[in-house]
Amino acid sequence: MTAPALPFSPDLIDDVLRRALAEDVGAGDVTTLALVPADQAGTAVAYAKEAGVLAGNAIAARVFTLLDSAVHATPLCADGDVLTPGARFLRVEGPLRTILIGERVTLNILRHLSGIATLTRAFVDAVADTPAQIVDTRKTTPGLRLFEKYAVRVGGGQNHRIGLFDGVLIKDNHIAACGSVSNAVKKARASVHHLLKIEIEAKTMEQVAEALEAGADGILLDNMSPDTMAQAVAIVGGRAFTEASGNITLESVRDAARSGVDLISVGMLTHSAPALDISLDIEG
Amino acid sequence: MTAPALPFSPDLIDDVLRRALAEDVGAGDVTTLALVPADQAGTAVAYAKEAGVLAGNAIAARVFTLLDSAVHATPLCADGDVLTPGARFLRVEGPLRTILIGERVTLNILRHLSGIATLTRAFVDAVADTPAQIVDTRKTTPGLRLFEKYAVRVGGGQNHRIGLFDGVLIKDNHIAACGSVSNAVKKARASVHHLLKIEIEAKTMEQVAEALEAGADGILLDNMSPDTMAQAVAIVGGRAFTEASGNITLESVRDAARSGVDLISVGMLTHSAPALDISLDIEG
Amino acid sequence: MTAPALPFSPDLIDDVLRRALAEDVGAGDVTTLALVPADQAGTAVAYAKEAGVLAGNAIAARVFTLLDSAVHATPLCADGDVLTPGARFLRVEGPLRTILIGERVTLNILRHLSGIATLTRAFVDAVADTPAQIVDTRKTTPGLRLFEKYAVRVGGGQNHRIGLFDGVLIKDNHIAACGSVSNAVKKARASVHHLLKIEIEAKTMEQVAEALEAGADGILLDNMSPDTMAQAVAIVGGRAFTEASGNITLESVRDAARSGVDLISVGMLTHSAPALDISLDIEG
Amino acid sequence: MTAPALPFSPDLIDDVLRRALAEDVGAGDVTTLALVPADQAGTAVAYAKEAGVLAGNAIAARVFTLLDSAVHATPLCADGDVLTPGARFLRVEGPLRTILIGERVTLNILRHLSGIATLTRAFVDAVADTPAQIVDTRKTTPGLRLFEKYAVRVGGGQNHRIGLFDGVLIKDNHIAACGSVSNAVKKARASVHHLLKIEIEAKTMEQVAEALEAGADGILLDNMSPDTMAQAVAIVGGRAFTEASGNITLESVRDAARSGVDLISVGMLTHSAPALDISLDIEG
Amino acid sequence: MTAPALPFSPDLIDDVLRRALAEDVGAGDVTTLALVPADQAGTAVAYAKEAGVLAGNAIAARVFTLLDSAVHATPLCADGDVLTPGARFLRVEGPLRTILIGERVTLNILRHLSGIATLTRAFVDAVADTPAQIVDTRKTTPGLRLFEKYAVRVGGGQNHRIGLFDGVLIKDNHIAACGSVSNAVKKARASVHHLLKIEIEAKTMEQVAEALEAGADGILLDNMSPDTMAQAVAIVGGRAFTEASGNITLESVRDAARSGVDLISVGMLTHSAPALDISLDIEG
Amino acid sequence: MTAPALPFSPDLIDDVLRRALAEDVGAGDVTTLALVPADQAGTAVAYAKEAGVLAGNAIAARVFTLLDSAVHATPLCADGDVLTPGARFLRVEGPLRTILIGERVTLNILRHLSGIATLTRAFVDAVADTPAQIVDTRKTTPGLRLFEKYAVRVGGGQNHRIGLFDGVLIKDNHIAACGSVSNAVKKARASVHHLLKIEIEAKTMEQVAEALEAGADGILLDNMSPDTMAQAVAIVGGRAFTEASGNITLESVRDAARSGVDLISVGMLTHSAPALDISLDIEG
Repeated sequence: MTAPALPFSPDLIDDVLRRALAEDVGAGDVTTLALVPADQAGTAVAYAKEAGVLAGNAIAARVFTLLDSAVHATPLCADGDVLTPGARFLRVEGPLRTILIGERVTLNILRHLSGIATLTRAFVDAVADTPAQIVDTRKTTPGLRLFEKYAVRVGGGQNHRIGLFDGVLIKDNHIAACGSVSNAVKKARASVHHLLKIEIEAKTMEQVAEALEAGADGILLDNMSPDTMAQAVAIVGGRAFTEASGNITLESVRDAARSGVDLISVGMLTHSAPALDISLDIEG
Repeated sequence: MTAPALPFSPDLIDDVLRRALAEDVGAGDVTTLALVPADQAGTAVAYAKEAGVLAGNAIAARVFTLLDSAVHATPLCADGDVLTPGARFLRVEGPLRTILIGERVTLNILRHLSGIATLTRAFVDAVADTPAQIVDTRKTTPGLRLFEKYAVRVGGGQNHRIGLFDGVLIKDNHIAACGSVSNAVKKARASVHHLLKIEIEAKTMEQVAEALEAGADGILLDNMSPDTMAQAVAIVGGRAFTEASGNITLESVRDAARSGVDLISVGMLTHSAPALDISLDIEG
Repeated sequence: MTAPALPFSPDLIDDVLRRALAEDVGAGDVTTLALVPADQAGTAVAYAKEAGVLAGNAIAARVFTLLDSAVHATPLCADGDVLTPGARFLRVEGPLRTILIGERVTLNILRHLSGIATLTRAFVDAVADTPAQIVDTRKTTPGLRLFEKYAVRVGGGQNHRIGLFDGVLIKDNHIAACGSVSNAVKKARASVHHLLKIEIEAKTMEQVAEALEAGADGILLDNMSPDTMAQAVAIVGGRAFTEASGNITLESVRDAARSGVDLISVGMLTHSAPALDISLDIEG
Repeated sequence: MTAPALPFSPDLIDDVLRRALAEDVGAGDVTTLALVPADQAGTAVAYAKEAGVLAGNAIAARVFTLLDSAVHATPLCADGDVLTPGARFLRVEGPLRTILIGERVTLNILRHLSGIATLTRAFVDAVADTPAQIVDTRKTTPGLRLFEKYAVRVGGGQNHRIGLFDGVLIKDNHIAACGSVSNAVKKARASVHHLLKIEIEAKTMEQVAEALEAGADGILLDNMSPDTMAQAVAIVGGRAFTEASGNITLESVRDAARSGVDLISVGMLTHSAPALDISLDIEG
Repeated sequence: MTAPALPFSPDLIDDVLRRALAEDVGAGDVTTLALVPADQAGTAVAYAKEAGVLAGNAIAARVFTLLDSAVHATPLCADGDVLTPGARFLRVEGPLRTILIGERVTLNILRHLSGIATLTRAFVDAVADTPAQIVDTRKTTPGLRLFEKYAVRVGGGQNHRIGLFDGVLIKDNHIAACGSVSNAVKKARASVHHLLKIEIEAKTMEQVAEALEAGADGILLDNMSPDTMAQAVAIVGGRAFTEASGNITLESVRDAARSGVDLISVGMLTHSAPALDISLDIEG
Repeated sequence: MTAPALPFSPDLIDDVLRRALAEDVGAGDVTTLALVPADQAGTAVAYAKEAGVLAGNAIAARVFTLLDSAVHATPLCADGDVLTPGARFLRVEGPLRTILIGERVTLNILRHLSGIATLTRAFVDAVADTPAQIVDTRKTTPGLRLFEKYAVRVGGGQNHRIGLFDGVLIKDNHIAACGSVSNAVKKARASVHHLLKIEIEAKTMEQVAEALEAGADGILLDNMSPDTMAQAVAIVGGRAFTEASGNITLESVRDAARSGVDLISVGMLTHSAPALDISLDIEG
């Protein structure tokens, strides 16, 4: 599988990594500076200790370059590759000091992003024979959203809007502030720019119908049972896209998909994916 | 339970939150700006949807103040409090626009930190009748280490060193670079400042004995069985502190604790704690 | 007229103003520090020296508060108000030193944004009896885009997408890279998230037809004559929105509007609007 | 014509460009990422669509390098060169994605700075047969002052002081605070460091005489008619430099110059210069 | 004595203090957090342990406010006051934790700036009966220039130019690059803006004469003996200002002053002033 | 002597140097830009004008690279080398403009750090025949702590804790807040992490005894006479380390060392070391 191109600027990567290094290395790695001579070279290899989907390899490699341009990091696998236990995916050569100083930050990034990609892949596989797409949410870790949304794509999922700025999603509180589903859709249409679609949350069939009537581009079916969702999909009849939402798990996602919805958004992809077990071995 | 005082500067909190807001709000919340009038006031309450330990309440409240000083956020519970499903712990009053714009960032922080505190509490409870202390690791989310280590303390755990700068922990790669456990300990003692203790990783009884002989202050027992750890603890005989380490889970932690070790470090507290389900309701 | 609420964070305002102050004040206002005692108070009033539309009043007021919280700035008019020559719109009271130090930055902001609002209003008035909306472009001053797009709205215009991230606009170079209009639209639809519409540039009637066929949400009519645009609008027949684009001036905008297009984008609103003549008088 | 060397640090250029890219590209160029493969190369050429003076070519080229060091930008002309319509002045080669992502920011910089250089050249040419020099003011766009003042020099103008920190210019408000022209000049002389000259604003012949008496190094003739200025220049008799100031236009500048003043400051050079029409063509 | 008003922005103060706090407090004051309860209040007083001139009191007070707005710091003396041993000049009240955490940074600032003011005062007093003024140089501590130059003024000295941007000082290397003193002065006059004076370094009487001839505004007499300087002052005869420069000490400054020079620049004011002994006592 | 490896990140160096350059160069070096052509090359050599220990050579070299990557700086000596008057230690080749622009910042860094290393060496030499180690304090210049502590090591001294975060040092105010020496030690032990030792200040023999009893790892002997310190060292008997502290000078340090203490902390190493006289000559 070919990795999606990194969709963020080099600046963002460096910025996140510098902060991660600052909080870990701070005033200096007292152990490594005391024990490892400045001129000792080393080679290290990152590898998986359990099966999963690799994500973040290029970001991880950048950690070492930021610390010292004398380090060379060579990817052995691409983001999106399925790693078997023991699979080696990144070789790092250079001053041993730098390798040891950067090790933890590198692994923290790789384990977190690969954990997300791995969980996403499981959800995608679970609905592979349905037309439903797995999408992420804005339930991401502060400061890491673009990385995490990238990991979702690496795992085969699609992104929902990136933030509050690139899509209109009208929720119950917005509807309450406008008085009705219909008013909310119309007010949004009159105000937001012409390249943004309008999606609105619906909790009942009545709201689904009202949203359609008002010309919503998409309808988020909030915490509905699969049967209710199937009914809503039927009512919509292709006039808008539909999105299933609400604490969907690996156990429930298949039933949700069978309702015929276009999208299934899964918060746990980014807020509760366990880290993938990845390690770094010094080889010489 | 009284919450530990926030051990980080207001600057750090603001810095993390500003980044989180930047990535979520970006060029503006197009939905809320379109649908909610600037002068509409509102009240919101954050509450738990499942049981857990609250962490991050003061940080979460700060999100709204950063957006608009006209918002008032009143904590109804303290960090460390055990929340039952439905428990309300934060009231927010002010412009409804601001409340809606800050909602997601607030929740992302609260859910993540409370998830860590909740998992930590489970580990702490599991070893409550042993002298072992649960400590965290450096396996934290990039950019959030001080927050996550705070959440561990809120959950009743203790912190290990914060980073590479405030403690000496000699690992196998350091030992390899120095030739022996003994050399490594002596070299560290000669170089690091006099207020730092020296802990060293041991994989065998021989390394435990050599570390003791060399005068290590503490010994990390790496991936040993409970029985082997008990044996190591006996050898050490109180001349150094001992730390159990290596993929310890809620299932295995009790056995580890019974070996008599002083500390049990648990990486998953910070790298794999699932988010606690927390929500925000607009009440008017 | 009520001013649109400021759609950007206080942080952005402060960031832009701090930079402006840094480049103007730098190591200190040597003249004012030498001549004006620290304890001398003063009052100043900003007023228009020619007719125009006010924009940026709240931003301008913030300049003084950033320099010294002892300054009080009171708006006498709202953004969007039409100023006649001599109209006073902002009163500033506090230490005279601060008022003099902040004067130039304040005026530079006000003159630039009011210039944009004034020019926009002229375009909007020119097409007032047509359904066409005046929209801005991405031809903005580096670092000031959100402010300038705000000034366009103050002047009665609408915003186009804010940047490359919140809307799909396929240009000739993209089409060339994809082989055809049709391929480009389909490829975009398959890849971008479901809340973004797809607009595509067309230079000929054939491209207009192909874009419609491929399901584009909108069509940008690039540098067409009013007659050609009218023909394109007829072909489109409401199945997509249409946008006139290409060096449109106050002289040509009315003809463009009569072609029936939905939107007319005008680059000069932000790249060539002359500053509005605004001054600050010390009154005591 | 040889371009003046860039008088600002690489850091400043990068800082301004990164902000411009951040506001334009933000979370990603969704169109280009969707439509242009990561490995497609391209060549683009920037050219003028109308006649003018080129300014900012090196800054513009830097945009692409900041995005991706794999892009090579080759200047074909130097800042200060007079461009005829169609003149090509910058070739860019590298990944097509990067070229398309950076296009708008590059053009916005070039068009703005070349617009200023072009207008400045017109003023300079208008007074070419007089000894008067055209100088700029502090009426610049927030955040771009050094760039804009550079463009003025590119166009053949001279810079006035850069900001409040590198020159003393006593205005009416300062005089009012000191009681008299004479007191103001003396107070300034006693306080500011010995490498700064002192210029003072005069509205009447009496003030001109008083300023001279007090030992001012220069006198700004504020909003005087050409005849009055000629009279003032005669009174000054070379004992101080003289500066004409006050809404001078291309129509009025020649008469002002003939009054014999040394300097003519023109605010519109930087606050109201229309952008020069410049475009970028993809050539393959 | 009245303290000179702080000539720098609040932003600069906060920026320097935040960095100082970051490097001292870092991940937290482990001692104070462990030993002092969050709710314990305290009062502290800063006082001199040796005689000297106070400088930096307002900056020092700001340290505590930055840490916690609940701290109140009340100045008991003003910058410029002569402190006798034991003199108390700043009272701080608030949370004891905050006082202890900020103590060291506060003292480091106060001791450094007061040391500079004290040394400056000694130089100023040594030449009090001559017309010579004591001025500082650009030999300052990286990052603290504006603070240090302020302390020089507090001590009664005058500032030389702040940096390379606000004054022309032609040194031997510049002269070498231009071929002659005369060429250097003329080239500078033709290029720099009209509000900057031109000072040039002279090592011989010939250079003094050549500089005068070329119209230099000031002449720096580089490492000349008092007799030679007196000769140079005579040659200059008031047509330019004169500055003595070159490792001038408290022992040699009086002789230098008697030569009749206008200015004596003293590098050691900022690069070698010993800290003034200042301490902070907790009083309850 | 081999220089200690730089224990701080390249980012820190660049950050400090960029600020130093910003405050010195600001809006541009008006003299050099006016007098030195952009294409003139030059060579410069830094050398000592008095004897001392070199520190900061790599940092100084970096100044030029930051300004212009076309400059090559070649170290001729290593940090820690003893420089005799006239000793040349750094050659710089490249554009003369850049060399002149960076000269002052480079020298300011070198003179300050070499001054600290030189003074430290004098202290170290004074106690060379005793077991006492010379250590620094937290009395450092704001913003330069890591550089200054590095210079202390270059001079042969040892570092005390870097800041408040990497060591426990209980002072009199902490003791007062806890009620007793004994309580303070116990409270600290219960709270701080297991890799930090606990040092406590003692003013009397009773406090020394109480600290030992409570299990302190080290005891700071505050302002005691050499005889009293010898008595304290005897009481401690190797059960904790001992540190002499309190205005120790080159005159008094030898007597302090003879008391048998392990460490002698000397604040003046960093707060009052005079700059080493270093200069830069243009050679062509």
